[in-house]
Amino acid sequence: MKRLLIANRGEIAVRIIRAARDLGIETVAVASDADTDATHARIADTVLNIGPGSASKSYLRPDAIVEAARESGADAVHPGYGFLSERAAFAALVADAGMTFVGPTASVIEKMGDKVAARQVAMAAGVPTVPGTEDGVADTDAAVVAAADIGYPVMLKAAAGGGGRGIRVVEDEAGLRSAFGQASGEAEKAFGDGRMYIERFVRSARHVEVQVLGDGTDAVHVFERECSLQRRRQKVIEEAPSPGIGDEVRSAMTEAAVRLCRHVGYSSAGTCEFLVDDDSGEFFFIEMNTRIQVEHPTTELITGLDLVIEQLRIAAGEGLSVGQDDIAVRGHAIEFRVCAEDPDKNFMPGPGKIGHVELPAGPWVRTDTWITPQSQVPPYYDSLLAKVIVWGRNRDEALARSRRALPELIVEGIPTTTSFLLDVIGQDWFGDAAFDTGTLERWLAERAETAGDRT
Amino acid sequence: MKRLLIANRGEIAVRIIRAARDLGIETVAVASDADTDATHARIADTVLNIGPGSASKSYLRPDAIVEAARESGADAVHPGYGFLSERAAFAALVADAGMTFVGPTASVIEKMGDKVAARQVAMAAGVPTVPGTEDGVADTDAAVVAAADIGYPVMLKAAAGGGGRGIRVVEDEAGLRSAFGQASGEAEKAFGDGRMYIERFVRSARHVEVQVLGDGTDAVHVFERECSLQRRRQKVIEEAPSPGIGDEVRSAMTEAAVRLCRHVGYSSAGTCEFLVDDDSGEFFFIEMNTRIQVEHPTTELITGLDLVIEQLRIAAGEGLSVGQDDIAVRGHAIEFRVCAEDPDKNFMPGPGKIGHVELPAGPWVRTDTWITPQSQVPPYYDSLLAKVIVWGRNRDEALARSRRALPELIVEGIPTTTSFLLDVIGQDWFGDAAFDTGTLERWLAERAETAGDRT
Repeated sequence: MKRLLIANRGEIAVRIIRAARDLGIETVAVASDADTDATHARIADTVLNIGPGSASKSYLRPDAIVEAARESGADAVHPGYGFLSERAAFAALVADAGMTFVGPTASVIEKMGDKVAARQVAMAAGVPTVPGTEDGVADTDAAVVAAADIGYPVMLKAAAGGGGRGIRVVEDEAGLRSAFGQASGEAEKAFGDGRMYIERFVRSARHVEVQVLGDGTDAVHVFERECSLQRRRQKVIEEAPSPGIGDEVRSAMTEAAVRLCRHVGYSSAGTCEFLVDDDSGEFFFIEMNTRIQVEHPTTELITGLDLVIEQLRIAAGEGLSVGQDDIAVRGHAIEFRVCAEDPDKNFMPGPGKIGHVELPAGPWVRTDTWITPQSQVPPYYDSLLAKVIVWGRNRDEALARSRRALPELIVEGIPTTTSFLLDVIGQDWFGDAAFDTGTLERWLAERAETAGDRT
Repeated sequence: MKRLLIANRGEIAVRIIRAARDLGIETVAVASDADTDATHARIADTVLNIGPGSASKSYLRPDAIVEAARESGADAVHPGYGFLSERAAFAALVADAGMTFVGPTASVIEKMGDKVAARQVAMAAGVPTVPGTEDGVADTDAAVVAAADIGYPVMLKAAAGGGGRGIRVVEDEAGLRSAFGQASGEAEKAFGDGRMYIERFVRSARHVEVQVLGDGTDAVHVFERECSLQRRRQKVIEEAPSPGIGDEVRSAMTEAAVRLCRHVGYSSAGTCEFLVDDDSGEFFFIEMNTRIQVEHPTTELITGLDLVIEQLRIAAGEGLSVGQDDIAVRGHAIEFRVCAEDPDKNFMPGPGKIGHVELPAGPWVRTDTWITPQSQVPPYYDSLLAKVIVWGRNRDEALARSRRALPELIVEGIPTTTSFLLDVIGQDWFGDAAFDTGTLERWLAERAETAGDRT
């Protein structure tokens, strides 16, 4: 690999350029009209324009990107995250053009990118998925048999349904017997089909994901990340390791992820996402992301492993630089996603021109960003400005340092979510790591209510 | 410890403020007239002016600093490095004012600050020092006896001498017998005293130092740093661990440093400097620095231990946060000192107003600095602008990342040594770690000669 085109923008493009430089690989950036002066375009060895600002006319155009790669003499393409990173057709197009796609093969992306297909693969690999009936259940007695197998509490969902209609949560057989008829009747009335899906109901869950690296034949895990703090299914603060699971779950979950990777012959960095049931401690595979994740630096800071460099090495056919026994955890890392959004206006995006900028720096702090003074934040793309990642020997130390580092970030001219992030880490439930995937939304709703009461 | 006055400026003041914040301690900065807008003054919770720009009228005035501490209600004083950091009288003054001095006791500073006294202490503690005669030797036969004891090669120095006159290096007894008479005669003629000191001659030596932490009774080492690359006795690039010693020397040297610390009841962070004889592999204690060192971040990056926080904890009576067994090395770190000097004009200092600034950041890079866009670099103080510290799993990885990170530093408006540092790491002897304390100066002299030939 001599010359790498980075089919992305923003902080991840900058981060990939840095990794390529560490390996002595030349870098080619692509930039839309809106990103002419953007950092990734400025620092790459070469930059090519690929179209207008709108992503669908630039960063989302496989043909334009492969053409740019050809024109620049690139022999490899790194998709970053988002944009085309999980499109099997793009990976195939790159490969067909005789270039190396830095990621798994198109067929693996296809297989693991579809949630239903990935669930089948997981089951075949002996990786636990959320228990449920594969098909609809037609009557109460069949439902009771299925539910006994699945384990209570269970959720009843109209097999033909949607929009939450006909959904019931039941705690035991008596509840099921009393609820099934009515729910099925409602479904029958609404959809002309009274069959119901029955699925395990996970009341309080954590979202924990396992970082994996595979070279097509062998695979290792690089431990897990805690990603439960989400707003509208967007992760807000991530940490590694997860403070919410014990060693037994950690060990079983990471093993399961490795099993899944080996099963599909996974090649490159990837992430297996799991739901952890807070009540039972069971974990269930949800989906796999076949690309580098936004939150990958937390894993890097606790293991010393450079995941983008591993991706590049694997893509170049050099294999993994480590075996499982070489990977160990030191300390704790927390990542904060700082976005160009106004937390006081329901997180309305606030693109525009940045004035003065100061970035958190110094001991135990890593800031991955693309913004500099006078940067223009275009309205077209996701609002991520910077990731502030803080390390400590343990979670408390990392948390104390987060309280120091976040206020060091100064971005003038546009709104940012920094104050919101500081609010979050000031909450007891954050300090105690006592949260699940619903905590952040519930807290925001309560805050909004309290604020409403005041006015 | 509730409120800490930092009796320093520049990057170390900023670094100490960050450590204090991590512990929830309020910070008080002192600033000369030249530093009114300096970063340390801007980011501290409180700032007090302590006099005109000239260091002797501000940062070097114990009375002004203790008065500022009193006025601000500080209960502790951190001296940083340089300035008053190794003045026993200042430590005593702070203690007498009822405040905590963040460093060892005045008596330990006094004892270890004097090279001759420190040598005596080291010998008493069973720590090897450069072998030599304590007094002058009067005739050839006595010299032969002494030299046999010391071990060849030895250096003859006029006991009454100075300025290098009468110095001879001899390789063996025959050489000594042939040289002694003449050297002694020259000394007799020059100083009226023909007695000669005999000392082991270390032809090719590395400067390796051991980081220690003591709490007054117990002590631990935090491994060693390689500091051989010096220009005019100023360190230029430091790394940890030392690539020039093996595990046997490492183990013996770190043990010796701990022995010395225990012997003097050392309390706080300190550094024992050793000379390592490249030929014999022997190491000799030279001196001890009873303060935090400029190059301490290299040790932090490979161990995860925050040395300034340890200093603060020890000073507050909380003791060490770790035992020896908790301290382990992961990877390799290299520190680059970027100074406001012109490498093309014999490193002439170039103070002035900085324009645009960009700092190296992102994965595996830590930048400790005080400069921001528009910073004024005063002519009064040392010329250190920034320390760029790079981590890798091994030295090669750290080196590759250094080649990436250093060019990311952009400082407009004044000269810096960045290009010089890049030149150094491009040399084979740097890549191979095949250097001693004289390498950098010899290389600079050769370069100057070659440049002279060209003009």
